[in-house]
Amino acid sequence: MQQTGGHTLKAFDQDIDRVRALISQMGGLAEHAIGEAMRCLVQRDSDGALRVVENDKKLDALEIETERRAVQLIALRAPMAGDLRDVVAALKISGVVERIGDYAKNIAKRVPQLEHAGKIEPLSLLPEMARIATGMVHDVLDSFVQRDAEAALDVCRRDSAVDDFYDSIFRTLLTHMMENPHTIGQSAHLLFVAKNLERVGDHATNIAEMVYYAATGQHMADHSRTDALTDRK
Amino acid sequence: MQQTGGHTLKAFDQDIDRVRALISQMGGLAEHAIGEAMRCLVQRDSDGALRVVENDKKLDALEIETERRAVQLIALRAPMAGDLRDVVAALKISGVVERIGDYAKNIAKRVPQLEHAGKIEPLSLLPEMARIATGMVHDVLDSFVQRDAEAALDVCRRDSAVDDFYDSIFRTLLTHMMENPHTIGQSAHLLFVAKNLERVGDHATNIAEMVYYAATGQHMADHSRTDALTDRK
Repeated sequence: MQQTGGHTLKAFDQDIDRVRALISQMGGLAEHAIGEAMRCLVQRDSDGALRVVENDKKLDALEIETERRAVQLIALRAPMAGDLRDVVAALKISGVVERIGDYAKNIAKRVPQLEHAGKIEPLSLLPEMARIATGMVHDVLDSFVQRDAEAALDVCRRDSAVDDFYDSIFRTLLTHMMENPHTIGQSAHLLFVAKNLERVGDHATNIAEMVYYAATGQHMADHSRTDALTDRK
Repeated sequence: MQQTGGHTLKAFDQDIDRVRALISQMGGLAEHAIGEAMRCLVQRDSDGALRVVENDKKLDALEIETERRAVQLIALRAPMAGDLRDVVAALKISGVVERIGDYAKNIAKRVPQLEHAGKIEPLSLLPEMARIATGMVHDVLDSFVQRDAEAALDVCRRDSAVDDFYDSIFRTLLTHMMENPHTIGQSAHLLFVAKNLERVGDHATNIAEMVYYAATGQHMADHSRTDALTDRK
């Protein structure tokens, strides 16, 4: 069923490059959304947060477009082996990037509830945690475009830094809640923001596994999997 | 490329039925895992919770098996149109069911930290919330096996009950935290348990959208989408 003529292979390459470009575009939007949501959180910018929520629709539309093209590619080109793994990875990765966008939207939705919050210590740690997590998203999507299994492994290794941030912020917030019971509502929202960022790191790790499998045909060895992957929902 | 001979169509049907059976099996394990995690939480059964965590590996293995068969099916049978949508839906749904299992695992992991917790009011609401959410998972996977778009829509409509439970438990827990600052750590764990269950409902809704698209070729109309889908990470 696979076409081995140069013309058809070239057509497949063009098609999959287009799909990869869509995923890169989705990644850029998701990264930007998280950065913006964190800026709005720190600066108490509820109007900006509303724009982050609104812009999430672009990501949803791009996911549908990516899926449409990937499915069409399978139907028209009947890719095999590594090519098929690539298209399947693209299908799955676009879904994960869309969910990363949802986390940004969820953070943005909490901004109005924190508009009048006083100084809460972890608010200064969260943006740095967000930078590390979005850096992972950026690099893992690059590794997909480059089919670079080693770079994907490297992203997995960085997830423990995000987890450490989460543990530290979790403890700091609980202490803050005990000492300032009147801020418990606001602190609970920040707990969920921290959890969302921790999940962004998990999702980047998740994508890394997909990239590794697509590039090598092997599932990432257990010893190199960070357990954080699925442990801290 | 599509084979229209009776023999090949029958082979596709057999293959996709096998994939559907795997997904049903995954769904059964995920439902059971959530039920067990909640039982362990209520009964402070840390040993049982450990088994829930351990059993999650079965779900991970089944997801890999489902993906392997789905990809093989695409490569060997080159399905088109509705058949192709079905296989792609199967691929995506198996990933979502695996994540539902992760939520059960995450709830189970919190059990030891609540072993010595006193009476916390929402602990009596959480099992009922879990029953509604797992009921949605059960019914949406049935709708996939039956290719029943209407049943999938019906599952979406039920998500608001899960969301209402979440809102109520969230408020009750915050009040409990303010009045009992020494239980803040335990209450924070229960907040995340409630959030996990709320996410299980979202994921069931998510699967419903995939079932609807696979069965009809149309994306679920916006008016029938419950917004909770992606809103409450």
